[in-house]
This record gives sequence, structure tokens and C-alpha cells, in this order.
Amino acid sequence: MAQKAVVLLSGGLDSTTVLAQAQADGYQVYALSFDYGQRHDSELDAAKKIAERAGVTEHKIIPMNLRTIGGSALTDADLAVPEEESEGIPVTYVPARNTVFLSIALGWAEVVDADAIFIGVSAVDYSGYPDCRPEYIAAFEKMANLATKRGVEGRSVRILTPLIDLTKADTVRLGLSLGVDYSATVSCYQANSQGEACGVCDSCRLRIKGFAGAELADPTRYVP
Amino acid sequence: MAQKAVVLLSGGLDSTTVLAQAQADGYQVYALSFDYGQRHDSELDAAKKIAERAGVTEHKIIPMNLRTIGGSALTDADLAVPEEESEGIPVTYVPARNTVFLSIALGWAEVVDADAIFIGVSAVDYSGYPDCRPEYIAAFEKMANLATKRGVEGRSVRILTPLIDLTKADTVRLGLSLGVDYSATVSCYQANSQGEACGVCDSCRLRIKGFAGAELADPTRYVP
Repeated sequence: MAQKAVVLLSGGLDSTTVLAQAQADGYQVYALSFDYGQRHDSELDAAKKIAERAGVTEHKIIPMNLRTIGGSALTDADLAVPEEESEGIPVTYVPARNTVFLSIALGWAEVVDADAIFIGVSAVDYSGYPDCRPEYIAAFEKMANLATKRGVEGRSVRILTPLIDLTKADTVRLGLSLGVDYSATVSCYQANSQGEACGVCDSCRLRIKGFAGAELADPTRYVP
Repeated sequence: MAQKAVVLLSGGLDSTTVLAQAQADGYQVYALSFDYGQRHDSELDAAKKIAERAGVTEHKIIPMNLRTIGGSALTDADLAVPEEESEGIPVTYVPARNTVFLSIALGWAEVVDADAIFIGVSAVDYSGYPDCRPEYIAAFEKMANLATKRGVEGRSVRILTPLIDLTKADTVRLGLSLGVDYSATVSCYQANSQGEACGVCDSCRLRIKGFAGAELADPTRYVP
């Protein structure tokens, strides 16, 4: 029987590539997305379409309103999304977001008896978020195996980050080699209701740089 | 200015005692409860009453439906709550519950710039849940300080567990010394809509043992 994995799927470029990698590695995939008060719904629509096309075993979308906590430009309508690079940790950082998402993934992993959780973080072309670094992932994995029944029984769960050492261009190349169709993915922090990307936010800038670096065409529709 | 703490408040005996301890330690309290598909609402009603009486700075109740994940007798109506002691990790264990709750507390702690998160776990009179052990708490704290902006800036957040080495009887004694009114607390896993406790589930048995051990009267209303 195939090993099972929970894959965190935002509907963006990175998580879509990770989903393809998990399937290429032979995992039976349980995709997990969050409705966390994002500025737009096109990201979730993308996640649904991608999970369906990939033929995952199950796709759950968990309502998780991080707006009630606030503190980020991604969930707080009063904070503007910056359109140029800044020093340090940017205002688009959502406090403890990856920790919350990985924790819920951990709960589901325990219920379906999954051996791994995949998350599309990268410590190379990233936005300076502390919860994208390998030392954070290692600490989460250690904690996870002390937290759960599986861990206590000595059947550890692994947190797998196939993109951790990849540039955005490497990720795009990897995805295309795995047959990923990037036209369905949404990266923009403030895409409009037609799913058109702004082209200027941090996430758009990283995506554009990725396709340019890989010398490939970006199928994203940007606002004219 | 007083230090701030996020306190996980279920409305039960332990978390109510912890809230009183945090206030006695001089913390300004941000109480956090979850509406996670418990079998009954009286626990949340208790939490509201307790937070209000304690005069906390803010009390948030986060909708967090763990029923969508399943796997526990506390959130899955098809699994029976056991009425006698069992070996190992019981079916009332909610997969990764403390990890999910502490993660969201971590996000809020970062937003309000809190120095500590209080959780009422005990490794003595407990139900055998892996996420109540000191090694788990230490691993979570380590991960938390790698996950957040505060941690990266060297201003660490502490996970405080004042009940970790206490028996249930010790906890009751501590609470009474801090002036806790236990009549508002609800421990039972299957209290009825009048807030009456069953008296036979694991949590009721631990509570009864606690009051008996402390040689004190339990103000809980049990079903006749």
C-alpha cells in the first residue's frame, strides 16, 4: 500500500510543485488548504482546481480565520501590501501562519495515519519569513513527534520540504519536469476577482524572477 | 507596564486555575478559547463567565472546527466517551489539539507582543495524552522561538505550565489559595445542556479525585 502524505496546498506556484513532487515520490496525497481570510478567493479556487486535476485522495479546506488575530497585511485590510522590497521581516508576514497550518496538518496526518507532511517553503528565494527556515522545520518535526500518538509509538512523521534549497527558477524547472501546469496557480497577494495578478507585490516579483531565471514563459495573467 | 500573557482557557478546572496564577504573577491576560466542535457548549459559556469575572484585558473565542479532521471521541459523535479507565492513549485524545491551540496562541502572542503563553497541562494526574508532557512543551517552546519575528529578534516567548508537576488535588488547593471560584468551571466531557456533569468520564473522575484528595467540597453539579 502506498505511503500517505498530507500536502499543504495554497494554490500557488510552490505548493503546486510540491504536490507534484509528493505524487512523483509515490505518496497518496491528502491535500489541505485554509480559508484564512485571504484578501481574495482566487487562491482557493486555484487550490480546488489543482487538487482535482492531480487526482488527490482527499482535499480539505479548513475555515481558519486568522483575521481575528490580525497583525498582517495579508489578512488585515487596513494594512497596505508593499510594492517594493523592504529590509527585514515584511508586513505580509502572518504571525505563526506556517506553525498553525502545520499543526492542523499534523492532526489530520495522525487521523489518516500519514507518514509525511509536505510544505513548499524555500530558504532561498523567500520573503524573509522566520517560519521558512530549515532550523524552524527541524524544530517543528521534533515537536510533532513528541506531540502525537504515532510519535510516542515510534512511528515518526516527517516534515518534507522539497523546495527548501531551490531558487524560484529551480522550482519552476522542477515543476515543469514533473508536468505541472502553472496556468492554474495564483501567487499574487492581491489578485483581483478575475484572478489577474498585480505584478508588483513581493510574491509576484518572486514569481516573475523565477520564470525569467528559468527562461520560461509565465502563464500568469497580470493586470493590463 | 505589566508583562502580557496569552492564557489558554477552556473553562475547566485546570485552565481557570492557570488564569488565576498568571494574574497573581502580575501578567496582563489575553484569554483564548476555542469553539472546536466540543460535544456541548457549557464549557464555552463557562470560559466566558470566568474571563469576565477575572477582568481579563481581552477574551477571544476562535472558531476552529476540529470535527472536520475527526479522530476523537470528544469531537466525533460516532465515538463513545469511555466511562472507565483504559490503558494507553484514550479515544478522547484529539489529534494535535494542544499543538493547534498553542500555535494560534503563538500567533496572537506575537500580535499583542506577549512574553508568555500559559497552558494548564499536567504530567501527573492526566489522561495519558502525549501533548501534556514536559518534553513536548520544551520542544514547542524551542520551535516557537524559531517561528516568530519576536524569536528572531531574540525576545523569546515562554510556554508556562504552572500545573505540570501538580496532582489534581494540588491544583484545587492552589486555585482555592488564589481565590478561584470553581462553581463556574466545567470539566465533564459530556455535560448536559444544564451544565450538569456525568460523573463517570475520565475528566469527571480526575476532578472528583482532585477535590477528594484536597479534602474539599466540589461545587460541580452532577446529574442526579
